[in-house]
Amino acid sequence: MPSKYRNFRNNVPWLILFLEAVFIVLFFFSTGDASSSSISYPVFQDVNHMVIFGFGFFLTFLKRYGFSSTGFNLLIIVLGVQCSVLIEGLLAFLLQSENEDGLKRITKATVSMTAVAISTGAVLGKTNPMQLILMTVVEIMFFRMSRWINNMFLQVPDNISLMHVHLFGAYFSLAVSSRFSEPSPSSKKNASTSKSDLFSMLGTLFLWVFWPSFNSVLVVDNKTKAICNTYFALAVSAVTAFMLSVLTTKDGKFRMTHIHSAVLAGGITVTYTAHSIEYPWIAMILGLLSSVIAVLGSYCLERCLTPALKIHDTSGVHFTFGLPAVLGALAHVVLLVIRDWTNSPRLGYLVMIRIGAFCLTISVALVAGFITG
Amino acid sequence: MPSKYRNFRNNVPWLILFLEAVFIVLFFFSTGDASSSSISYPVFQDVNHMVIFGFGFFLTFLKRYGFSSTGFNLLIIVLGVQCSVLIEGLLAFLLQSENEDGLKRITKATVSMTAVAISTGAVLGKTNPMQLILMTVVEIMFFRMSRWINNMFLQVPDNISLMHVHLFGAYFSLAVSSRFSEPSPSSKKNASTSKSDLFSMLGTLFLWVFWPSFNSVLVVDNKTKAICNTYFALAVSAVTAFMLSVLTTKDGKFRMTHIHSAVLAGGITVTYTAHSIEYPWIAMILGLLSSVIAVLGSYCLERCLTPALKIHDTSGVHFTFGLPAVLGALAHVVLLVIRDWTNSPRLGYLVMIRIGAFCLTISVALVAGFITG
Amino acid sequence: MPSKYRNFRNNVPWLILFLEAVFIVLFFFSTGDASSSSISYPVFQDVNHMVIFGFGFFLTFLKRYGFSSTGFNLLIIVLGVQCSVLIEGLLAFLLQSENEDGLKRITKATVSMTAVAISTGAVLGKTNPMQLILMTVVEIMFFRMSRWINNMFLQVPDNISLMHVHLFGAYFSLAVSSRFSEPSPSSKKNASTSKSDLFSMLGTLFLWVFWPSFNSVLVVDNKTKAICNTYFALAVSAVTAFMLSVLTTKDGKFRMTHIHSAVLAGGITVTYTAHSIEYPWIAMILGLLSSVIAVLGSYCLERCLTPALKIHDTSGVHFTFGLPAVLGALAHVVLLVIRDWTNSPRLGYLVMIRIGAFCLTISVALVAGFITG
Repeated sequence: MPSKYRNFRNNVPWLILFLEAVFIVLFFFSTGDASSSSISYPVFQDVNHMVIFGFGFFLTFLKRYGFSSTGFNLLIIVLGVQCSVLIEGLLAFLLQSENEDGLKRITKATVSMTAVAISTGAVLGKTNPMQLILMTVVEIMFFRMSRWINNMFLQVPDNISLMHVHLFGAYFSLAVSSRFSEPSPSSKKNASTSKSDLFSMLGTLFLWVFWPSFNSVLVVDNKTKAICNTYFALAVSAVTAFMLSVLTTKDGKFRMTHIHSAVLAGGITVTYTAHSIEYPWIAMILGLLSSVIAVLGSYCLERCLTPALKIHDTSGVHFTFGLPAVLGALAHVVLLVIRDWTNSPRLGYLVMIRIGAFCLTISVALVAGFITG
Repeated sequence: MPSKYRNFRNNVPWLILFLEAVFIVLFFFSTGDASSSSISYPVFQDVNHMVIFGFGFFLTFLKRYGFSSTGFNLLIIVLGVQCSVLIEGLLAFLLQSENEDGLKRITKATVSMTAVAISTGAVLGKTNPMQLILMTVVEIMFFRMSRWINNMFLQVPDNISLMHVHLFGAYFSLAVSSRFSEPSPSSKKNASTSKSDLFSMLGTLFLWVFWPSFNSVLVVDNKTKAICNTYFALAVSAVTAFMLSVLTTKDGKFRMTHIHSAVLAGGITVTYTAHSIEYPWIAMILGLLSSVIAVLGSYCLERCLTPALKIHDTSGVHFTFGLPAVLGALAHVVLLVIRDWTNSPRLGYLVMIRIGAFCLTISVALVAGFITG
Repeated sequence: MPSKYRNFRNNVPWLILFLEAVFIVLFFFSTGDASSSSISYPVFQDVNHMVIFGFGFFLTFLKRYGFSSTGFNLLIIVLGVQCSVLIEGLLAFLLQSENEDGLKRITKATVSMTAVAISTGAVLGKTNPMQLILMTVVEIMFFRMSRWINNMFLQVPDNISLMHVHLFGAYFSLAVSSRFSEPSPSSKKNASTSKSDLFSMLGTLFLWVFWPSFNSVLVVDNKTKAICNTYFALAVSAVTAFMLSVLTTKDGKFRMTHIHSAVLAGGITVTYTAHSIEYPWIAMILGLLSSVIAVLGSYCLERCLTPALKIHDTSGVHFTFGLPAVLGALAHVVLLVIRDWTNSPRLGYLVMIRIGAFCLTISVALVAGFITG
């Protein structure tokens, strides 16, 4: 593809330069107080590591994309974080709300970038760098818009709306990837090797280890509770992942794909509820369910969805992040109903609002994805 | 081995499922306050990283066990941590002692898992997954029992008794591995490659870097002292490891096996004493001695012990963790004697109790290991 | 080279043993209060990780030096840290200044070791271990001397003088490496493989992620500001690195060498100024400039300097660390001038002192390097 590559060479650097120039000019007008912070620095570092290393290596499982995905991941994340910090500042200026300190803004932007990292996983191998960079900017904007609608009209607290990030990332990427043609199965781009599998395992371990930090970074009180619940949910879902992997394969060996997707399912599911779950056994059962859903999902969807809807989902984003996030949303509503069963006349209203928030997030993600695609 | 693999396939997932179901049911009855914690979260993360990454990669040095050991390590650790948290809760219920907060429990459980990770290293390549999982549960129980005896009858403080973890892990695994037949030397399972050596080096570096956190996580006062002493002991033992490695090999190159085992020896030796050593030079001399013992141990034991006692110690657990821990125990007693030489009529009693605690730990480990084997 | 290797075997271990013995004896006489610390432990861990992992893997990009450089890096760093702590203690004793606590000393020593790690990168592949160890000890002494002159005669604050570490490391190593003959281009020692490139990328990512900790570890107030500014400078310089890499190569692909060197340039440039920059856009522009300088530098210097001055700079230390540090020094002076334009009669004096400090550091580095070489 010489013409395509020349095209790529001509455009990508100028696009990056243009974006970067715009960012610097906008930063010139934005203000921010960076003298102190409500976010502890070590926890910010954990989230930063998680996004840079975890997703960077998580995505190296395709043989051809070893360096490409690690390097690109860094490029996309730093672009996206700057973009996200700017949009946040612009909104704060427009809505006349109070400014947040610098470190908190960067942390929130890094958390938002999880959505983009997830989407990148789904379209990897089908897009060129140009498209990935544009997708990043567009997705960050739509995600902020979806959060803004949630905050304004549905009174969803800010840290909960930020946790819609997995839901948004997964369904956005599904919509985008439905617009790309499926690569031919004979293509070598989808092959994985044992070495790239080891790196991918490394990425999964990174994500696994840092997930409690991710779930607790924006929680103001009950931080320890959020950490413990996330840990137990992750532990149970790791155990379940290994078990199901042996059960569903014919030769009784562990299969990377299952472990890859199911190990993290527990952490994603308790994202909404980690700080409010009272007893660890509830988190453990959620971890168990989410892991079952992820493995069964990968089993069924690969057979049904791909031929039917012509969606090719390179790294199984739908069952790795999408389905556990939907389960987490349901669990959030169910736990709310149980807790407030007796003493709340506004229960129906609250439940409706929460469900509305989830549906809204999914539909914004789908619509935005189609448009971007 | 088709019949063995079918057997494996039939049993392992059900065993895991059974354990996990029991854990969830027991967690239903256990209580725990998770609202705040006396353990700082970043330090818990360090210990968590150390166990997941450090031991995971430390054990990848055999060629065939790259993914297997990293993945299995995760499975065994999450099972063991849950098991350990439950036993702790059960004991607290039986003895009517006060409950510890959630994060502290998980941290203690993670520290305890070091024993299991060490034992796994010794039997790797000789066991099937079924045996490893059972060994995990049994070892955690025996280790808790040994700690309980130490606490109750010998008045050893809880954080000291937890530091017997290396001693217990090493001698437990020696006893277990003496029950397995030695694999044939021609077997390819023991071969290591340069790539797996690099990963193993990565694991060693992880353990080296996080060791100060490990030694200071349960120390209440003198935390900084514990960190500094551990750092100096580790530094000297790393230097000594490189030196001895060059001296003992014929071609004057570094040998991975020596560095692997001797680099960490200093950290293990000062485990008991890190918070009470007054001057860094004492820690440095301990680091030097422990490194010498580890390398000489690997030199002698490979020649004497393996043929004589028919014990095959895959990753040299005895001289990597066992001997430095014994040295640390001796140093602990010697330092106690020196400090309290003049002003304590109870000195003899104290010394006897400490020695008793170490002997008890070793003998419980050996007996338990034989039974498990 | 059998005779050389025998020589190596005979000398290296005794040299290490001698150094270690001297260190332990000197530590016996040094005092230090380790009961509490003004440095937070997680941030110390970040810097420690950065030096051990980051530089360890950063230097693995040559095919033959995979394990060698990671292991050697550890050896050199632990030797250097001990040496640096001792010199610090000796100076504190001679000058009758107050003692710093243990953890702060180790942290400062670790920061100083960055200079040695940088120098190691420049001479890698041209020296034997003996020379590297001697270079470490000599460089640490000269760097402390340079800092002492800066503190005493030019009234540069201690944390600023410590930040001259990149400048010193880069020019010291240039001077040293000019004394070595250039290896023959056909030599295989300079070849890099895709696997070693991936490890090197891992090292770069480690350095990138931990750089905010490095720049803020010794800052007493405005810590959050230092972190945010460093983050933005790093982000912009990563973006610019990718852009320039595509622009300067003929086939429009990313080239590892450029990314390797330019990604970090932003962090190095804001080292002096991170805590005093008021607005993020200034940090961003500095990041942009430094990245441009690093890539252009690598483009020009490889053509001009190597043939002209016969300096062979294995890992491009001059344009990776040297030029961005010079830019940072200039920016430091320029920002000082702008801020104090109106209200300072001593402006000229202050500027001269700062410039003097930089020139002094560079010239001490060059002179020391020539002597060592």
